[in-house]
Amino acid sequence: MAVYGVVVFEEAEELDFVGPWEVFSAAAALSGGEDQAVLLGERVAPVRCAKGMTVVPQLALTDAPGLDVLCVPGGEGRRAQQKNEVFLAWLRAAGARATWVTSVCTGAFLLVEAGFAAHKRVTTHWSRIDELRERGDATVVEGVRFVRDGNVVTAAGVSAGIDMALWIVGQMRTPAFARSVQRYIEYDPAPPYASET
Amino acid sequence: MAVYGVVVFEEAEELDFVGPWEVFSAAAALSGGEDQAVLLGERVAPVRCAKGMTVVPQLALTDAPGLDVLCVPGGEGRRAQQKNEVFLAWLRAAGARATWVTSVCTGAFLLVEAGFAAHKRVTTHWSRIDELRERGDATVVEGVRFVRDGNVVTAAGVSAGIDMALWIVGQMRTPAFARSVQRYIEYDPAPPYASET
Repeated sequence: MAVYGVVVFEEAEELDFVGPWEVFSAAAALSGGEDQAVLLGERVAPVRCAKGMTVVPQLALTDAPGLDVLCVPGGEGRRAQQKNEVFLAWLRAAGARATWVTSVCTGAFLLVEAGFAAHKRVTTHWSRIDELRERGDATVVEGVRFVRDGNVVTAAGVSAGIDMALWIVGQMRTPAFARSVQRYIEYDPAPPYASET
Repeated sequence: MAVYGVVVFEEAEELDFVGPWEVFSAAAALSGGEDQAVLLGERVAPVRCAKGMTVVPQLALTDAPGLDVLCVPGGEGRRAQQKNEVFLAWLRAAGARATWVTSVCTGAFLLVEAGFAAHKRVTTHWSRIDELRERGDATVVEGVRFVRDGNVVTAAGVSAGIDMALWIVGQMRTPAFARSVQRYIEYDPAPPYASET
């Protein structure tokens, strides 16, 4: 029984958390009820995301079950969360007992703030690499989809959370199981307009 | 001024609509306020998606502005919508004036039901290809990310909506602009576990 926890907060970037949410909840569905995915927020109340979508978390942080995988998105709202001591205290406690502590995009700033990335290799959205380097504490890697260092896994911007979440599922179960999730979400990506014309 | 409309309904699959939502709303953000993305539902009330995420639409269908791009997701909830005459009537009217009528995953069944796919080439989630063929009316194509036939564009399962939405943005503006959206969401996908080991 694995519990995947995905966090959301005001002005979180939509795909940052819904990409992993889809992967983890599909993994839970394919596990035949053994695994579970939960969407968490500071309160069970509507949260307005960065691009205007409103979501309602399933559970308050304080009511969350023990998480095996913790996933923190980014988005401009992460700036407020970097100063939200209630959120950071929860993050430290939940992450301390998790098997994997993960972030997507600028969610990496929250892992750094909470102390998970000290002396570790991490990544973030390409436009925030320099800002994260200036914070110190961590070694910031660029040009990769995600970085694993110990039990901390940080993904690059927005859509990179899908690749990262699939990798995590493969670690929690098997690569073959992760491929079944990939098949379920038909993730054989082919971005259009590859040519310069 | 382009208006992108993404529809949501009970038991819609999360990434089916959030993938295009992220692409269209990022396009709107990068347009400097010229374009707009709206999330629509039958009512402005919480909608429980297929994997348990709850969203609140921004606008009711009846309050929607004229849409240039209409995007219909799939998910098991599409079965109820196939019999929802209120939804189908709105879909026919909104689609009739849209430049592009699009679907993701089993949302294709709703475009067929509304009459948009008659005698057209369409696709859907790999697991529902046979079911869609049995309905008749349309020629069902498999093994592609999305199919464009006239102004109807149907994407394959779940994550394929991201590729489709980027293509649509390139048609509404330019391929270079679509690439800027791709860059914004850092969509350089690299699914893990490509090898069989």
